[in-house]
Amino acid sequence: MKILFVAGDPKPERWTVPIRELLPDAEIYVWDPDGPAVNADYAIVWQPPSALFEREKNLKAVFNLGAGIDGLLKVPNLPKDLTVVRLEDAGMSAQMAEYVLHQLLEANREMETYREQQRQGVWKIHRPMKRSEWPVGVMGLGHIGKRVARTLAALDYRVSGWARGEHSLEGVSTHAGPDQLAGFLKSTRVLVNTLPLTDETRDIINYDLLSQLQPGAVLINVGRGEHLVEDDLLRALDEGILRKASLDVFRKEPLPEDHPFWQREDITITPHISARTLRDATLEQITGKIRDHAQGRPITGVVDTERGY
Amino acid sequence: MKILFVAGDPKPERWTVPIRELLPDAEIYVWDPDGPAVNADYAIVWQPPSALFEREKNLKAVFNLGAGIDGLLKVPNLPKDLTVVRLEDAGMSAQMAEYVLHQLLEANREMETYREQQRQGVWKIHRPMKRSEWPVGVMGLGHIGKRVARTLAALDYRVSGWARGEHSLEGVSTHAGPDQLAGFLKSTRVLVNTLPLTDETRDIINYDLLSQLQPGAVLINVGRGEHLVEDDLLRALDEGILRKASLDVFRKEPLPEDHPFWQREDITITPHISARTLRDATLEQITGKIRDHAQGRPITGVVDTERGY
Repeated sequence: MKILFVAGDPKPERWTVPIRELLPDAEIYVWDPDGPAVNADYAIVWQPPSALFEREKNLKAVFNLGAGIDGLLKVPNLPKDLTVVRLEDAGMSAQMAEYVLHQLLEANREMETYREQQRQGVWKIHRPMKRSEWPVGVMGLGHIGKRVARTLAALDYRVSGWARGEHSLEGVSTHAGPDQLAGFLKSTRVLVNTLPLTDETRDIINYDLLSQLQPGAVLINVGRGEHLVEDDLLRALDEGILRKASLDVFRKEPLPEDHPFWQREDITITPHISARTLRDATLEQITGKIRDHAQGRPITGVVDTERGY
Repeated sequence: MKILFVAGDPKPERWTVPIRELLPDAEIYVWDPDGPAVNADYAIVWQPPSALFEREKNLKAVFNLGAGIDGLLKVPNLPKDLTVVRLEDAGMSAQMAEYVLHQLLEANREMETYREQQRQGVWKIHRPMKRSEWPVGVMGLGHIGKRVARTLAALDYRVSGWARGEHSLEGVSTHAGPDQLAGFLKSTRVLVNTLPLTDETRDIINYDLLSQLQPGAVLINVGRGEHLVEDDLLRALDEGILRKASLDVFRKEPLPEDHPFWQREDITITPHISARTLRDATLEQITGKIRDHAQGRPITGVVDTERGY
């Protein structure tokens, strides 16, 4: 079995050495832009070049090194019938859930105020936060969205969820499809975005959507930068429709130096760190699936490339 | 039925008005330091003066407006056979759990570094945190300690717990009594204190204890200030035994202006806000118990005053 590793890591041996250990019988290749075809059976990829699919014609499946497969699906010559497998969790949903909770507390428990008080040497207690005043709405109810929703519900927040299709989740009121979006937004003060990026969800977080949230709204975006219309966010903040935004993803990453987001006190910026792929868990999952697929066993995480996730 | 409210709130009507609504048949009195005895059946108290127990001789039970009853038990003339009832949860354990998680993320996910990067306009991703490197140990496995432990375990942290007596908690390895303290500390990097304050636990967090934690240790104290030997904390930080401390409680509150803790970057100070009593939930619980007790029904939360919690 031949496996081709295709990701822009300057030290690909960080991946190929453990892959060899996990699949000792396989031949492991690193993508060479100028090299010949290796006739790989499987490719492990992150944002691969289109040359991959021109050159490698025997691929049985391609494994994406992340949960979001928008970077892979936009490669123009990705064969329509190729099996595309996305990363499932691998430690990401717990990271995402705790990141969201951290950002929520920054907003509803005034942690920056308490840090500033310490710098000033001031002891002052502020009005305690009431959970009933901070209903949370989670957009996207995939593996990650569900984990976020469950974590917050377990901490006694009122949580609702919205996704394209029907979902059911204990302790969370769920809404499905465009028809139920308005009801979802009306019951939400803290909007958490975990949607996949598709043609349907691109630009979904715009002025119109933000205007439908409860007063004093907070946005936490851990999905993709392209979900958010940046000028609409600034307008909503300037008009007081939105109180605060925590953004981990951006239309252009790294966020350009002269971008207006950097200087705003009502926007918290983190450099796409809300959930990092953990190499060990990732490779264990992918090599396990390669082994199963090669032996004709069913695998999970196969993407509906038409639907986009 | 006569109920006496004894707490230093400058606006006691914030409490007595809802109490009257919840117990319309009761007579509600506010403690007057110079007033006569009212022959109250029940007292609702926070750090009451000893004059209370000199004057009121008909008390059937006293209800504490907090989970920690050390402030009540140290009143010298508290009658030995008086039923003392502590507040059970009333929204506090969820607040405590999320506060602890927030402080944990400040330490293990470098949130202050990312905030500083934003101030500088810098996009830089740091090595992701591995949960296996951040085992958490929770001291105290009462209602609050258990909620903290469960919350962290649900987010895939390795959690162990230590308490005086035996406890069992799914997903958490528990240790009991002085004999098992060393084993607990050895398996802990992040020490969370939720113990009750008793003669046995006073000064328990000292240099010797801190020295037994794993390298790069972090202390999160949400118990009581008197659990911590302050000079020992400074020594442990200065010697690098401890990396960081998050303190919500102090031996003297408010923390004195000239206290050395204020200026340290390795100590995070919050003004006893990790869990605030929520008035509605508190009064609903206490008035419900008063009603039950008056009608001879059993109530929970009765304190073993000998044991101290």
